[in-house]
Amino acid sequence: MSRIAYFGPIGTFTEQAARTFMTADDELVAADTIPQALDAVRRGEADAACVPVENSVEGAVPATLDSLAVGEPLIGVAEALLPVHFSILTRDDVGEIRTVASHPHALAQVRQWLADNLPGARAVAAGSTAAAAVAVQAGEFDAAVTAPVAVEHYPLKVLATEVADVRDARTRFLLMRRPPVVLPEPTGADRTSLVAAAANRTGALAELLTELATRGINLTRLDARPNKQNFGEYRFFIDFEGHVAEPRIADALAALRRRCRDVRFLGSFARADGVRATIEPAARNEDFTDAAGWVAAVQRGEQA
Amino acid sequence: MSRIAYFGPIGTFTEQAARTFMTADDELVAADTIPQALDAVRRGEADAACVPVENSVEGAVPATLDSLAVGEPLIGVAEALLPVHFSILTRDDVGEIRTVASHPHALAQVRQWLADNLPGARAVAAGSTAAAAVAVQAGEFDAAVTAPVAVEHYPLKVLATEVADVRDARTRFLLMRRPPVVLPEPTGADRTSLVAAAANRTGALAELLTELATRGINLTRLDARPNKQNFGEYRFFIDFEGHVAEPRIADALAALRRRCRDVRFLGSFARADGVRATIEPAARNEDFTDAAGWVAAVQRGEQA
Repeated sequence: MSRIAYFGPIGTFTEQAARTFMTADDELVAADTIPQALDAVRRGEADAACVPVENSVEGAVPATLDSLAVGEPLIGVAEALLPVHFSILTRDDVGEIRTVASHPHALAQVRQWLADNLPGARAVAAGSTAAAAVAVQAGEFDAAVTAPVAVEHYPLKVLATEVADVRDARTRFLLMRRPPVVLPEPTGADRTSLVAAAANRTGALAELLTELATRGINLTRLDARPNKQNFGEYRFFIDFEGHVAEPRIADALAALRRRCRDVRFLGSFARADGVRATIEPAARNEDFTDAAGWVAAVQRGEQA
Repeated sequence: MSRIAYFGPIGTFTEQAARTFMTADDELVAADTIPQALDAVRRGEADAACVPVENSVEGAVPATLDSLAVGEPLIGVAEALLPVHFSILTRDDVGEIRTVASHPHALAQVRQWLADNLPGARAVAAGSTAAAAVAVQAGEFDAAVTAPVAVEHYPLKVLATEVADVRDARTRFLLMRRPPVVLPEPTGADRTSLVAAAANRTGALAELLTELATRGINLTRLDARPNKQNFGEYRFFIDFEGHVAEPRIADALAALRRRCRDVRFLGSFARADGVRATIEPAARNEDFTDAAGWVAAVQRGEQA
């Protein structure tokens, strides 16, 4: 049995994502914040943590990235992709809906729907989508914008489902474990994630990305986050196609390790969207293995 | 007289920043959201808009970046840098403080202070720091975490000032105008800002940054934002040292224009921190001017 910590309370999108990582006898444990979910794994109180990393509309989730960059390192072993659409929940006894509560990010993603369908209602910020449901239950507000899973936890009436201003909005989640971990097997549709502090000089980031580009490795994401000490200094969160078990990826990681003041591996795992890696000519794993074999033979004086 | 729109209501950090851009007979106009402040300029209802672009703790301000990337283009003509520390405001009649309201970002930046100084108080999310002050005034909550300027607008008691968990946290603001504009004169301590959609293929971003690096241009910021249509496709917000009036910067912009599907100039203006550009050997403006002169002479058959 594993204990999986997640950014709670129950009834949030993160709980919904955490469920996709569960096997039958696993247990979910709600944490108050993203850093607390990750710290539970660092302290050994949980075996894994499920945290959101990016949203197709809002972008990166700062609390997750910042918490992964410092403290005891954790390694991502699986990812999940969840469609982001909301349910609007209310109480049976509510007549006209005058207030709609939710987390500000959720409110931002249904603004147009609210204007079209509940033009008289005032939007009110709550600490989480689930906290909004609790407040509606307590009679503080008339309706809540929540994750679909919320209705399973709170005895509220469903006013609308699949509500979202942007079609196909999605959030990506990672399951993080404490090393040593058994890395997932490469599948051909993998993602590798890391965070690096590039040297603070002209061209440093260009050189770092060129290490990936010259090895034919396709970036899937790049986020710069301030390092919080000096304005203008950043950490770069870089995701790319491939798995560290592959020679081309291992070769690139070694180059980044040489170049960067500080680089931290955040995991290699199967992509939730199943997109297979694009391999450029001369950047196949066989090319790397053959080339390394040839150099070794040259060093032994066997080949020219 | 100019009308300057800003992300209101009055009493926020953005109002405080907007004041730094004002001359004696300018007028400030509050907008409900960042996109609305920018749209007021696009529609000619305001002459300029003051918007936050990045915070040294929270990172980029998504609403600003997304609104600058689409719609009618706007050009940044000035920047301001504001220290981010908060005031804690309460009413005269409040005894024990049980609830503290503010925007979730502000609450996140004073969490430790609240734990140390008001351990019994519950944090409550509000729509803005100023909305929290209004709610305290109305008796809904006991205290508000606000911008220092708030106390000038709301008749509340100051419980504490200069509150911030992170020392030296700062937010950067831009003043945006509708073209045609008179670009500010180069000062030697300038920043140029643009947003580019790099081609979606291996190495595209590395090549783009190499165009800057090979011209000795120092990046000051890079932010990737999802383009909201396809998960995994991004726009890059890139800031670097220098002014478009300089030959080396003009040369780099032309190269980016050739390379990128879509590139938009967001302005060249004096840096609020006054940091002068680092010029690499062979990347001085004279080097660019001399080289262009030599090529022209070669083309005329005058030099070899």
